[in-house]
Amino acid sequence: MKKTSKTKYSLGLDFGTNSVRALLVDVRTGRELATAIYNYESGQAGIILDPKNPNLARQNPADYLKGIEVSVGQTLAKAKRADKRFDPSQVIGVGIDTTGSTPIPVDKDGRPLCFDKEFKKNPNAMAWLWKDHTGFAEAAEITKLAAEEHPEYLAKCGGTYSSEWFFSKILHCLDADPKVFDAAWSWVECCDYIPAVLTGETRPDKILRGRCAAGHKAMFNEKWGGLPSKEFLTKLHPKLGALRDRLYSQTYTSDVAAGKLALPWAKKLGLPAGISVAVGAFDAHLGAVGSGVFPGTFVKIIGTSTCDICVWPNDQPLADIPGLCGIVDGSVLPATLGLEAGQSAVGDIFNWFIEYLQPGGPVKGSHEALTKKAAKLRPGQSGLLALDWNNGNRTILVDQRLTGLLIGQTLHTRSEEIYRALVEATAFGALTIIKRFEEYGVKIDEVIACGGISEKNPLVMQIYADVIGKEMKIARSAETCALGSAIAGAVVAGKEAGGYDKFSDAQAAMCGVKAKTFKPDLENHRIYVELYRLYRQLHDAFGTKEWSGSLYNVMKDLLALRDRQLTEKP
Amino acid sequence: MKKTSKTKYSLGLDFGTNSVRALLVDVRTGRELATAIYNYESGQAGIILDPKNPNLARQNPADYLKGIEVSVGQTLAKAKRADKRFDPSQVIGVGIDTTGSTPIPVDKDGRPLCFDKEFKKNPNAMAWLWKDHTGFAEAAEITKLAAEEHPEYLAKCGGTYSSEWFFSKILHCLDADPKVFDAAWSWVECCDYIPAVLTGETRPDKILRGRCAAGHKAMFNEKWGGLPSKEFLTKLHPKLGALRDRLYSQTYTSDVAAGKLALPWAKKLGLPAGISVAVGAFDAHLGAVGSGVFPGTFVKIIGTSTCDICVWPNDQPLADIPGLCGIVDGSVLPATLGLEAGQSAVGDIFNWFIEYLQPGGPVKGSHEALTKKAAKLRPGQSGLLALDWNNGNRTILVDQRLTGLLIGQTLHTRSEEIYRALVEATAFGALTIIKRFEEYGVKIDEVIACGGISEKNPLVMQIYADVIGKEMKIARSAETCALGSAIAGAVVAGKEAGGYDKFSDAQAAMCGVKAKTFKPDLENHRIYVELYRLYRQLHDAFGTKEWSGSLYNVMKDLLALRDRQLTEKP
Repeated sequence: MKKTSKTKYSLGLDFGTNSVRALLVDVRTGRELATAIYNYESGQAGIILDPKNPNLARQNPADYLKGIEVSVGQTLAKAKRADKRFDPSQVIGVGIDTTGSTPIPVDKDGRPLCFDKEFKKNPNAMAWLWKDHTGFAEAAEITKLAAEEHPEYLAKCGGTYSSEWFFSKILHCLDADPKVFDAAWSWVECCDYIPAVLTGETRPDKILRGRCAAGHKAMFNEKWGGLPSKEFLTKLHPKLGALRDRLYSQTYTSDVAAGKLALPWAKKLGLPAGISVAVGAFDAHLGAVGSGVFPGTFVKIIGTSTCDICVWPNDQPLADIPGLCGIVDGSVLPATLGLEAGQSAVGDIFNWFIEYLQPGGPVKGSHEALTKKAAKLRPGQSGLLALDWNNGNRTILVDQRLTGLLIGQTLHTRSEEIYRALVEATAFGALTIIKRFEEYGVKIDEVIACGGISEKNPLVMQIYADVIGKEMKIARSAETCALGSAIAGAVVAGKEAGGYDKFSDAQAAMCGVKAKTFKPDLENHRIYVELYRLYRQLHDAFGTKEWSGSLYNVMKDLLALRDRQLTEKP
Repeated sequence: MKKTSKTKYSLGLDFGTNSVRALLVDVRTGRELATAIYNYESGQAGIILDPKNPNLARQNPADYLKGIEVSVGQTLAKAKRADKRFDPSQVIGVGIDTTGSTPIPVDKDGRPLCFDKEFKKNPNAMAWLWKDHTGFAEAAEITKLAAEEHPEYLAKCGGTYSSEWFFSKILHCLDADPKVFDAAWSWVECCDYIPAVLTGETRPDKILRGRCAAGHKAMFNEKWGGLPSKEFLTKLHPKLGALRDRLYSQTYTSDVAAGKLALPWAKKLGLPAGISVAVGAFDAHLGAVGSGVFPGTFVKIIGTSTCDICVWPNDQPLADIPGLCGIVDGSVLPATLGLEAGQSAVGDIFNWFIEYLQPGGPVKGSHEALTKKAAKLRPGQSGLLALDWNNGNRTILVDQRLTGLLIGQTLHTRSEEIYRALVEATAFGALTIIKRFEEYGVKIDEVIACGGISEKNPLVMQIYADVIGKEMKIARSAETCALGSAIAGAVVAGKEAGGYDKFSDAQAAMCGVKAKTFKPDLENHRIYVELYRLYRQLHDAFGTKEWSGSLYNVMKDLLALRDRQLTEKP
C-alpha cells in the first residue's frame, strides 16, 4: 500500500476526428498504464456528411460525452487488470485535447443547440468539425476585410483566414442558417467545451477559453485587445459584431486549471472529485508537447492530416511567416511562441486511394500490400508526380479551393506506383513547409514525427527522410496527443499533488524518442531534389496567382462548375 | 444447288492488337454469315513486353500464321453450321487489314528474322507493334532532319514523324541492335506480309506493298519519287540509306490484287486456290470502308485506341493539316485523299483504370458497374478533368512523350467519377481532332462510329455526342475492319466472279448504319463547352511550347527521370 501511494497518474483525453482516446500515464516515468478508445457512433466514422455538399463535415457532441464515459471507464478497468495495485485515487489530474477549429453553437447554459429537440437533426446546430469547408466564401470575405483594415490580424495567421476556422464557420452559419445562429447564445470550441463539461461549469461566460484555439483560429491576440474588434466583426455582419460580447476576452494556457473535476462526472467516471482539469488545447499542440517539443525541434503529427508544430523563444525576434496557420504566444508551451503549420490531408489521401478507388470496394490488406510493392520502387521510376491537395492546401498556400493532381500516368502505371506518388506528394508538401520555416529564420535541428502513420509505416518515414533530407525521429509514445494532455494534467495538478510545476520538467520525465530513426539516403535525396523542382513548378502554376502562367484558374473553375452542377436542379 | 451458287462470299481477315478475326460476308447484302477470332498466344495478350522498358511492344509473327489457320478454319465450320448450303467454293476473294505501322525485319526470302534460331527470342527480330515507342529519339531525329531538308515529307504527315512509324522503328533497331538490323534483308509491314504469305510470294522485292502503310507511315509519295530520298536516309544513317534499295518503289491501293491464293494455303484453309487476295491496308482504313466512308463522313474507329478516317475528293483543293497522321492519295478509297488522325489510347485507358488501378486486382464486371454509376453523374459534377495522354498524343500534338493527367480529385472522389472523367477526356481529345479538320476546311456532315466501344457502351457514345455536339451514328456491322477487308476481297474478285468493280458499289451493297443514333443533349453540351475550355488550357500548357507558361517540360522531365531510373543500376 505504501509503494503504490507513491505512484501518481494523470489522465489524458484526446478527441480525434473519428474517436476519443483516454490514456493513463505514470507521471514519474511516462509509462502508459492503460488506454482505451471509443469510436463516435454518428454519421460516417463519426462525421456527419451531406452527399450534396462535399464541404460539409459535422459531429454530434453527444458522441463526445458518451466517449468520455466509455473510454475512461475502459481505461480504468484495463489499468486495474494491468496493475492490481492501481487505484483511481492515484489519478491526480486530467488534460484534454481536441480537434479544431471545431466550434459548437450553444445556448446560454452552454448546451449544444443540437441537444434541443428543435435542432436535433440539424447539422448546423452540431459541432462544425475542423475539416468542414462550408465557410470558404466567408473565409475569403474575412481575409479581404482584414487585409484592408486590420492586416495585423492576418500577419499572425499566415496572411489568409481559413475556411476551417472559427469565424468563417460562424459567419457561414449566419448566412446559411440564421435560425441556428440566432438561437446560439455563444459558440464554444470543442477543446473548451469538454473541460467545461468535466468541471461542471458550461456557461459560456464562465468557461476558461484556451489560448491555443483562440490565438490560432479566432485571431485572438492581447496586442489588439483580444478578439478582432467589434467594429471589424460588425462590418462582416452586425449580428457577428453583437456576438463578440458573448464570446470571451480572456484566454489561458494549458498550465492553468480550467477547474476541478465536478462530482457528477467524478462519480460517473470513478475518478476522485476535485482533481484538477487543465484548460484544453488542440491535439497537435499537446501532441507536440507529448513528443518533447522544445526550441529547435520540429514536430510532425502525421495522421489523416498533418500538423507541424514548433516553438520559438519569446525573447528572440521572429518575423511574421506567410502561410503559417498561426504564431501564438503560449499555444504550445508557456513563454514561447507556438508556430503551427499543416497539411489538410495526408493519411486521408492514402485512405481515399485504398477505400474509394477500387470499383469493387476496398480490399483488406491493401495498405500493407501496396506499401510492400511501393517499397520496391526507386524514386522517379514510375514517372509519376502528384499534388497533395485533395483537401486543399493549408500551408503555405492557405487555399481550400485547390484539388489533387496526378501527372505522368501511362498505360503501364500500377496502383502501387500511384500510392507511392501520393506518399511522395505529401512528403513534398512537408518539405515545402519546412523550407518556409527555414526561409524565415526558424532553426530546425531535428524532426520528430508522431501519429499513427509514423508508427505504422516505415516506408512513409523513409520517403519523408529522403525527400526532406533530414533525419526523422519517432516519438516514443504511440499516443503523443493523449500523453501531452496527461502532461498538462500533471502540470495543473502541481508538484505538491505529485505532479509538476512546469511543462519542461514534466516533459523531461514523461517524453522520449524511439531508438529506430530514419536517415536520408543521399542518392534518393538527389533524385527527390529533381522531382521536387517539378513539384514546385506545378505547385506554383496551379496554386499561385503570381506565376507567369495562367493555370491558377483551373482547379477553381472546376470546383465552381462542380458546385453549380451539384446544386442546380437537373 | 442453283440457288446457293448465286450467293458469293468474301473473306475479311482483320489482324488487331491482341487477336485476328476472320469474317465471311455475303457480297450481295453484307450479311455476315460467320466469324471467328483467334487470340495471339505470345506475351501478354499477344504483346511481348519488357518490364524494364515501358516503350517496348512487339509481336510474334508466328501468332499471325497460326491465327489465320484457326480463325478461318473456325469461320468456315461455323458458316456450314449456319447455312447448310454453304460451300467454301462460294468464297471469291480475300481482303486483309492489320495494325500499323507494324514492320517486321525479314530475310531475303521474306521470313521474319525471329523464325531463325539465332533470333528466336529476340524481340527486335519480331514484329514491332504499332504501339511500340522505343524509337522516340529516332523519331525526333527524323523530324528534325526532314524539317530542315525536306519539309514536304512532313507536310503530309502532320508536321512530325512519329515514334510509332516505320523508319523510327528501323532506325532504332539500327541503334539498339545492329546485329538484327544487319541480318534483315528488308523490312515488311504486317499488312504487306500477310497477303504475301497467302499468295505464296514473300520475297521482299516481289511483294506488292500497300499505299496505305507506305503513304501514312513511311513518307511515301509519288510526288517526290516514292520513299524519302536515299540521300536523306543516308544522312540519318548510311545503312538506312543502303536499306532503301531493298524496300520498294511502287505501292498499290486495295482494289488491286496482291496475287492469288496459293495452293498450300488454300489446302490448309479449305478455300479455293487461285481466288484473289487484295493488297493489304491498315485496320482503320478498311474499317472506314466497312463503315461506309465517303466525302463528308467522319469515321471514328473506337477501340483500344481510336483512328479517325475521312476522305476528300482528289479534285478539290486541301491544305496540309498540321498534326494529322497523314494525307495519302488512295489510302482509303481510290481517287480520294485518305485523311487519318487518331488518339493513341482510348479503350486502353478505360481498361488500364479497371485492370491495373485496383490494388486487389481487377474485379469482374467493373466496366459495367462503373458505367452504370458514371451514367448517373452530370457533366462537371465530379470536379474532375483528365488529359487522355496515357499513351502519348497522336493528333494533334504528335508527341509520344506526353503522359496522363488527372486534376480535381478530392477526398470524396470516387472511382466512377474518375472513370467518367477518363471517358470525357477521350471525348475532348476527339473534339480537338474534329476541330482541327474543320479549321482546315474539311467539311464534316456526319460522324459514324464503329469498333467495340461504340457497340458496347452507349454512355461513351452519348458523352461523345454531348462533347462533340454532333449526332453520332454507329456502323451496322460490329466488325467494320473485317468487313472492309471483305469488301476489298469482293472488289479484287471483280464483277465477273460475282464481286464488284469498284469500292463505292461494294459499299452501297454491303454497308449501313444502325437505327439507334446518339444526339447531343444541348444542356450537357453547354457544360462540356466550359469543361473543354479548361481541357484545352491544360492541353496547351503541357503539350505545346508556344504557350506562355513553362509546363511543357514537366511530363518530359518525368519521363526522362523514369527512363534513367529504370536503366541505371540501383
